[in-house]
Amino acid sequence: MARVGARQESRTILTSRRRNVQALVIDRDAPDGIRFVPDYPQPGPAPGEVLLRVRLAGICATDLQLVRGYMGFAGVPGHEFVGRVETGPPTLQGRRVVAEINCVPPGSPADTLDVRKHAPDRTVLGIQGRDGAFAEFVTVPAENCHVVPDGISDVQAVFVEPLAAACQVVRDCPQRGEDRVAVLGSGRLGILCAQVLALHGPHVDVLGRNPRTLDLCRRLALRAGHVDEVPPGATYDIVVECTGSPEGLRRALRLVRPRGTVVLKSTYAGAERLDLAPAVVNEVRIFGSRCGPFDEALDLLRRGRVQVEPLVTARYPLARGVEAFRAAASPEHIKVLLEPPAA
Amino acid sequence: MARVGARQESRTILTSRRRNVQALVIDRDAPDGIRFVPDYPQPGPAPGEVLLRVRLAGICATDLQLVRGYMGFAGVPGHEFVGRVETGPPTLQGRRVVAEINCVPPGSPADTLDVRKHAPDRTVLGIQGRDGAFAEFVTVPAENCHVVPDGISDVQAVFVEPLAAACQVVRDCPQRGEDRVAVLGSGRLGILCAQVLALHGPHVDVLGRNPRTLDLCRRLALRAGHVDEVPPGATYDIVVECTGSPEGLRRALRLVRPRGTVVLKSTYAGAERLDLAPAVVNEVRIFGSRCGPFDEALDLLRRGRVQVEPLVTARYPLARGVEAFRAAASPEHIKVLLEPPAA
Repeated sequence: MARVGARQESRTILTSRRRNVQALVIDRDAPDGIRFVPDYPQPGPAPGEVLLRVRLAGICATDLQLVRGYMGFAGVPGHEFVGRVETGPPTLQGRRVVAEINCVPPGSPADTLDVRKHAPDRTVLGIQGRDGAFAEFVTVPAENCHVVPDGISDVQAVFVEPLAAACQVVRDCPQRGEDRVAVLGSGRLGILCAQVLALHGPHVDVLGRNPRTLDLCRRLALRAGHVDEVPPGATYDIVVECTGSPEGLRRALRLVRPRGTVVLKSTYAGAERLDLAPAVVNEVRIFGSRCGPFDEALDLLRRGRVQVEPLVTARYPLARGVEAFRAAASPEHIKVLLEPPAA
Repeated sequence: MARVGARQESRTILTSRRRNVQALVIDRDAPDGIRFVPDYPQPGPAPGEVLLRVRLAGICATDLQLVRGYMGFAGVPGHEFVGRVETGPPTLQGRRVVAEINCVPPGSPADTLDVRKHAPDRTVLGIQGRDGAFAEFVTVPAENCHVVPDGISDVQAVFVEPLAAACQVVRDCPQRGEDRVAVLGSGRLGILCAQVLALHGPHVDVLGRNPRTLDLCRRLALRAGHVDEVPPGATYDIVVECTGSPEGLRRALRLVRPRGTVVLKSTYAGAERLDLAPAVVNEVRIFGSRCGPFDEALDLLRRGRVQVEPLVTARYPLARGVEAFRAAASPEHIKVLLEPPAA
């Protein structure tokens, strides 16, 4: 055992050397809250971690909130990505992988998603206490990696993390066959949630404001309409709140039937004025819902049950990441991808 | 059938004559938001309703919110009470009754509590569209009445409505045996909820601020402590929010474990600043919970499983109702009762 310990130590010293990499870094003083750094000093992988070369990454609403101060995060954001293992155990070496974002120290008893994602000592990739994937390289615990089957493209693989979060909605709030379901928000996450929910029941409406994304929903065979055009008095058994704004929950509480369920997927920076009396009077259930099962998401992509490529509206090299963030925040775009320099 | 209709009509004309009664009336222009009216013109019962002489009524947190504008209610508040049937069907005539507060028009298909309390066309006694019980008389649909067994005192009977609301917590969020449960707020509703929850599991803590009510909890064999003295990191599987203030939900979200449940019992006037991101990150479930089963509450009182008399700290004649409202709002008091003039 002493020998193993010694070897581990030497490996740690070897691999924990910092290297300078291209990265996007949260910077409160930068005009956009984020800046491109050509020579970010990145530590190597800790014991039990793998070093991944990032192939492709996606910007999501949480990233846009992080640059506004959500979670008080400092460092490299980015948690939707696909990479190739540069340094890792033999089973992973050289493989194309996606990675769960909740990280616990090696040897933790947190061996399931539900435990890892709520472990008090967790770090969260690109969100809390750990640099993320908007960089040339990223490190993650080996146990967080899922190998991407060959039939799934890099673009598809970038969607595994948010698609897993969409799958979690169904885990948290199983639909009964005839449930009327509304997805509030026709953006990135709303479209993924709606596609997953539509696999579980026939009555799923996407309610949004953006004609571009509502059109895309219809092209994906989803029923979609403007949120202001819901007939008065219409109510839903389940409302999935994906707007990314506090107005979404207020609206959800108006659309859900008494004793119905609102699933909250949005997180945003800061407190907002909210009257929860309608939730009490109508005995509504509000479920917070976050990360989900990667294996289910990979399976849906492999079997072609969910379409994600049509969501991509732009790809930017990492060096133009600030511009990419502006695009991702604009209603002209849905999913914006970031490409680090190739190996 | 024509004959029955004719009789009903003549009865309606007979009983719908207004009579002048003593009552407390919400009045935005009054210094306390409420005033005593010695000659309030009260309509008689509509078809299907009974006329009750109010024997005793209780002031609850919702009443204190109503005088601050909650629900925009105008009229006579009061929904916790016991009365005697003055005019009603033979099965009820002369009986001592308590009454469910959600009222639907006669002939509605709303024949269960869950349907009545969410019927879109409902009125709610002393809260929404219908005068309540802080008066000499009150009218309610006959189907809302529950006869009070002789073994239950008037004081006990006044607690049936809030005790039923406490029973609803267990319906909405069944405890597993080992669940750690916190009741936030050691006031009127908190003490009732804690007593009911303690019948279903051994780990129930009442967390409050008022030494007087915390002492009462301990005298009722409940485990109780100051909310600021909860050990750091302590978490609960279920937190029942009974504080009547928006700070309560913020606190509940800090005390509940990841994937735990917060039951919201409080309603209050107006919107408050609230950050629900912790509910999403921790995947908390927030259940709105309101009125409950009267039969269960009557049964608990009849069997002596819940003690309510120790909560009463003052009784006022109806004519001193404004003073009674001030007392009910003060931390010196727990439950304040109102006594209309005897028959």
